[in-house]
Amino acid sequence: MTRVAVFGATGYGGIELVRILLAHPEVEIGYVGGHTTVGENLADFYPHLAGAIDLTVGKIDVAAVAEGVDVMFFALPHAVGAALVAEALALGKQVIDFSADCRLKNLADYERYYEPHPHPELLEQAVYGLPELHREEITGTRLAAVPGCYPTGAILALAPACAEGLIEPDGLIVDSKSGVSGAGRSLSLTTHFTECNESVAAYKVAQHRHTPEMVQELSLLGAPVTLTFTPHLIPMNRGILSTCYGTLTREVSVDEAVALYREFYTGERFVRIHDAGKLPATKQVTGSNFCDIGLAIDADAGRLIAVSAIDNLVKGLSGAAVQCMNLMLGVPEETALTTYAVWP
Amino acid sequence: MTRVAVFGATGYGGIELVRILLAHPEVEIGYVGGHTTVGENLADFYPHLAGAIDLTVGKIDVAAVAEGVDVMFFALPHAVGAALVAEALALGKQVIDFSADCRLKNLADYERYYEPHPHPELLEQAVYGLPELHREEITGTRLAAVPGCYPTGAILALAPACAEGLIEPDGLIVDSKSGVSGAGRSLSLTTHFTECNESVAAYKVAQHRHTPEMVQELSLLGAPVTLTFTPHLIPMNRGILSTCYGTLTREVSVDEAVALYREFYTGERFVRIHDAGKLPATKQVTGSNFCDIGLAIDADAGRLIAVSAIDNLVKGLSGAAVQCMNLMLGVPEETALTTYAVWP
Amino acid sequence: MTRVAVFGATGYGGIELVRILLAHPEVEIGYVGGHTTVGENLADFYPHLAGAIDLTVGKIDVAAVAEGVDVMFFALPHAVGAALVAEALALGKQVIDFSADCRLKNLADYERYYEPHPHPELLEQAVYGLPELHREEITGTRLAAVPGCYPTGAILALAPACAEGLIEPDGLIVDSKSGVSGAGRSLSLTTHFTECNESVAAYKVAQHRHTPEMVQELSLLGAPVTLTFTPHLIPMNRGILSTCYGTLTREVSVDEAVALYREFYTGERFVRIHDAGKLPATKQVTGSNFCDIGLAIDADAGRLIAVSAIDNLVKGLSGAAVQCMNLMLGVPEETALTTYAVWP
Amino acid sequence: MTRVAVFGATGYGGIELVRILLAHPEVEIGYVGGHTTVGENLADFYPHLAGAIDLTVGKIDVAAVAEGVDVMFFALPHAVGAALVAEALALGKQVIDFSADCRLKNLADYERYYEPHPHPELLEQAVYGLPELHREEITGTRLAAVPGCYPTGAILALAPACAEGLIEPDGLIVDSKSGVSGAGRSLSLTTHFTECNESVAAYKVAQHRHTPEMVQELSLLGAPVTLTFTPHLIPMNRGILSTCYGTLTREVSVDEAVALYREFYTGERFVRIHDAGKLPATKQVTGSNFCDIGLAIDADAGRLIAVSAIDNLVKGLSGAAVQCMNLMLGVPEETALTTYAVWP
Repeated sequence: MTRVAVFGATGYGGIELVRILLAHPEVEIGYVGGHTTVGENLADFYPHLAGAIDLTVGKIDVAAVAEGVDVMFFALPHAVGAALVAEALALGKQVIDFSADCRLKNLADYERYYEPHPHPELLEQAVYGLPELHREEITGTRLAAVPGCYPTGAILALAPACAEGLIEPDGLIVDSKSGVSGAGRSLSLTTHFTECNESVAAYKVAQHRHTPEMVQELSLLGAPVTLTFTPHLIPMNRGILSTCYGTLTREVSVDEAVALYREFYTGERFVRIHDAGKLPATKQVTGSNFCDIGLAIDADAGRLIAVSAIDNLVKGLSGAAVQCMNLMLGVPEETALTTYAVWP
Repeated sequence: MTRVAVFGATGYGGIELVRILLAHPEVEIGYVGGHTTVGENLADFYPHLAGAIDLTVGKIDVAAVAEGVDVMFFALPHAVGAALVAEALALGKQVIDFSADCRLKNLADYERYYEPHPHPELLEQAVYGLPELHREEITGTRLAAVPGCYPTGAILALAPACAEGLIEPDGLIVDSKSGVSGAGRSLSLTTHFTECNESVAAYKVAQHRHTPEMVQELSLLGAPVTLTFTPHLIPMNRGILSTCYGTLTREVSVDEAVALYREFYTGERFVRIHDAGKLPATKQVTGSNFCDIGLAIDADAGRLIAVSAIDNLVKGLSGAAVQCMNLMLGVPEETALTTYAVWP
Repeated sequence: MTRVAVFGATGYGGIELVRILLAHPEVEIGYVGGHTTVGENLADFYPHLAGAIDLTVGKIDVAAVAEGVDVMFFALPHAVGAALVAEALALGKQVIDFSADCRLKNLADYERYYEPHPHPELLEQAVYGLPELHREEITGTRLAAVPGCYPTGAILALAPACAEGLIEPDGLIVDSKSGVSGAGRSLSLTTHFTECNESVAAYKVAQHRHTPEMVQELSLLGAPVTLTFTPHLIPMNRGILSTCYGTLTREVSVDEAVALYREFYTGERFVRIHDAGKLPATKQVTGSNFCDIGLAIDADAGRLIAVSAIDNLVKGLSGAAVQCMNLMLGVPEETALTTYAVWP
Repeated sequence: MTRVAVFGATGYGGIELVRILLAHPEVEIGYVGGHTTVGENLADFYPHLAGAIDLTVGKIDVAAVAEGVDVMFFALPHAVGAALVAEALALGKQVIDFSADCRLKNLADYERYYEPHPHPELLEQAVYGLPELHREEITGTRLAAVPGCYPTGAILALAPACAEGLIEPDGLIVDSKSGVSGAGRSLSLTTHFTECNESVAAYKVAQHRHTPEMVQELSLLGAPVTLTFTPHLIPMNRGILSTCYGTLTREVSVDEAVALYREFYTGERFVRIHDAGKLPATKQVTGSNFCDIGLAIDADAGRLIAVSAIDNLVKGLSGAAVQCMNLMLGVPEETALTTYAVWP
């Protein structure tokens, strides 16, 4: 059994990770740490897990925990966990980081969108934890950076088209619709029930921090891309639908596009490409690790429209983290990730 | 008092029209007609109007009703009402049509997206009922075609930029998010509560029937446009948010863009342009006749992003119909349309 | 024109009052006061009212405002506004208080459920602002206490049965389901979107502060009652459905019960009694001042089940406040309250 | 491996059963049958299961299927499946029936609430499939009747109090709040998104068909009960919260009541009793087989209030069916039922 520690266990990402790991036959949760909830029993705080786990939230103290665990998950806000990640690596642990601190290769990108990086050396060590594009690197790393939820859906939707030159690298548009859990459990007027229920709005248009991740990963597949990203908040708990637009480089039928995508994702357990004429709804992936993708062609305008659906807390966060961990540990990649959505 | 007839009163558009007209001091509802609900008391069917109106649903029979009414509203599916519209005009009535039958100027557009037109002569007679762009024509017409709900939001969001040459006419994208009431009261699996709740999906990508309306109206403002339109279904009752993308023809700040939009809409009672940095949520217009617009600039990508919010059943349908009627009758344009959204 | 001040204008009750008053032909809002929002423009804070009102939030200072206004509304938490109410009365103003400070006749009840009363003399002066039961007193008062939202629905549902001795006074049960706006705009984990969406729960079972109001008012109609009250939080913005149970004192058909209720509420503009076999949904009153009531009889168990639906922010709060104000000012009771629900 | 057939696989209950069985290590789904969906691939119809199962929906033909399967599940409407159940039993199969046909012991109860029973002999053979009350009988039966969703929550909430004489058998009240999936996938105006979203209503008050099940099972535990049952429809996908009221026979503290409930349910894997002061929300059981129960005492009124939360499609239907099957097959009762709710 591999013993793991989860730091930041009481946020939505952390608790979802705990839920997934509880079903993992090769892993035991040895420690859960938090900031404001130290001393609370995790199941008192999250009653859905009553009976599943009897762990008290402890401090976030890497050194004190290190001896008993092999893998450390850091589900902490950006910049907050960087020093801890560095410490864990120095202690020889395998690390999976949920924050943005280790995702970008270019320090300037990080510092433009976030702040001065507390540990810039991490950027070189880290692997971008999207197995569909970086499986080998993840398998060999000790530091995987879980991609942002929006980038996961957008990159998977556009990667085959970028890699195969089906669309121009310039002028990509990603218009995403996210459930509210993406904003976490911290209180804000934006996520107050009566403020976001029965309403839709865009936010952080053309300035969201997930933009440089999309640009980085899609540019790695071919020519450097330019991309406009617009996130929207939707009155539902989970799910991200990303509607992605690219200018076609040549005439193509939807069937051809579907075939190209299926070829690209051959063997990928968690990417499902719809038949021509079908498009995904977020409901079909809720609670699961799938990314479902549907394609359409606007022949008049010469455009590819690729639509992806993910669960932002599973494939968009904690499921991806477990997928990375499985690769890093050498256990089958899909372990603990084979559940399907609950419908309806 | 002007007496009006509402044909198709028991759909969502029809009943919303009835609700608005009940507050109109110059209008009396003389007749409500329906197909499957003949003989029912309207308020039994829609309990929110109990006590407000005591009218029994009658047949859809233009000639039989003509003597008693001055204005006829047709809230019927496309093609179904065209002969009735023609009949009402022949009887000298003023007509406001909710369907697509009278919106397009180009017969071929209609027949590409719909079917052979049963009364193509209506296309020439009709005025596109968007007062912000066609006020004078509406004032003088006897046949106003209420715009589609999606086109209303999209056209108002892009019109100033197209008219002033701020964006390229080519390559426009309209990504819209609609509440479920846009699909009407007819039952379908798509609008079954448990199927669309907690989910988001795109539909009719690059083939929705509202596309040619957008192209027609925006092309009238400058050069002919090309446009990709993607509608999405959102788990809420009302509202459409349209996120519209255009390639900038020149560098511009958000403040300049806001100023340009405010100049374009000077004096418009129902269009509110947000200050730079603010974007509309559909909640703020629910139940009202407003179209609220916010702007953003993606300087890196050279793009304008214009976001509009409307209530699809008010400004997107029945409110627009009353606005047209007011102009046609010569009463103040805002009569019966001055209510504000209920928050929250 | 009567000039009014609204203290606590930026909560949900206050802003809903502002919205209703904006449509009142005899009233002008002369002042809006708040605690944490002083200096903000009300419409910046609540974008749905942009263009409707251009008022800056001022301090809560009764004396400074007194000269310019005739009526003062206090939409403040209990205990916070009591001294201000007293001050306003001393200055000769007409006062409508939203809090619990003036609702109960029995000081011990207040102090059991709330805290030591800061101004117990108010209890004697105040009139319980439920016009259907206290119209004459309200007409002659200078201090109306707006009933709690739950009591409004429960009392109206049970009053005819209690007054006419149709049910035993002992053992009443009120099981209420409330939308989330009843909890206000203050942030809490309970009202965080992702915590209350897709879930239902009971809270404060058998200890909610609205219980003594129900007991007080129903006991005034006949024998002293005992009553169990269970509130529930429902994932919707507005509305309270109260399912009320009483043991029948005699056999009665639903038709007889309906007739008895209609007799009791003869002439009441805002109470609508459903025909036998029909029950109200909260949707049918959203945004309106109606209380809709449906009845059922469980003959096997000898029970009356009375179900009422109100909008908690209109008939349950701000609409009731305006209804009281109208009576106190001698203008028609329904002024500004004649709108119907928006459906769907 | 046990091979099973699922008849009625394309309803919500059937597909949820399929989802659960897919994770069952001892079971293989050998056949799925339906009425209107014959010839469709199940995963085309329910895209969340794409890749999980490659089965085409066949006819509902017991004899044709019998050879290849050991257990048959009938997820069909009442009366429709009775002859098939009889046929399956005659062929020596083990049967689990989702309908009401086999739940009631008293034919007159069935015929009062439903219709003349097509196979009354089934009533004697069948075991009421609530393992917490009938484990031994289920273990030995060949015909288990899955309890109704409402009865499951209500019976589990009241059983300890009835069995231990804590409450009077007369005058029980069950006030239940159900998500919309309980109404199934068949289209109706009641379950049209825009009609039930943002609204709450009671329905079938004092006449719902699940009432006699509650009476039957609770009466078996002590004295015959009388009971009023009021179901409500809540705008959410899943979950039933049942608020149950009984008159206390003696003074008792919440702590004592909690202890009594815990004693009663000792060893039950799927019933979780909350500590005094805590009440369940349906969210905490969504997608899981738990029934969570919280208790409150109204000392003034001498009442016990027991609140239970279940997922109507899992513990309230398909999870219960698998729990029964496990007992009937002699595999560990919790097999395939150990998942926890997804939060949020």
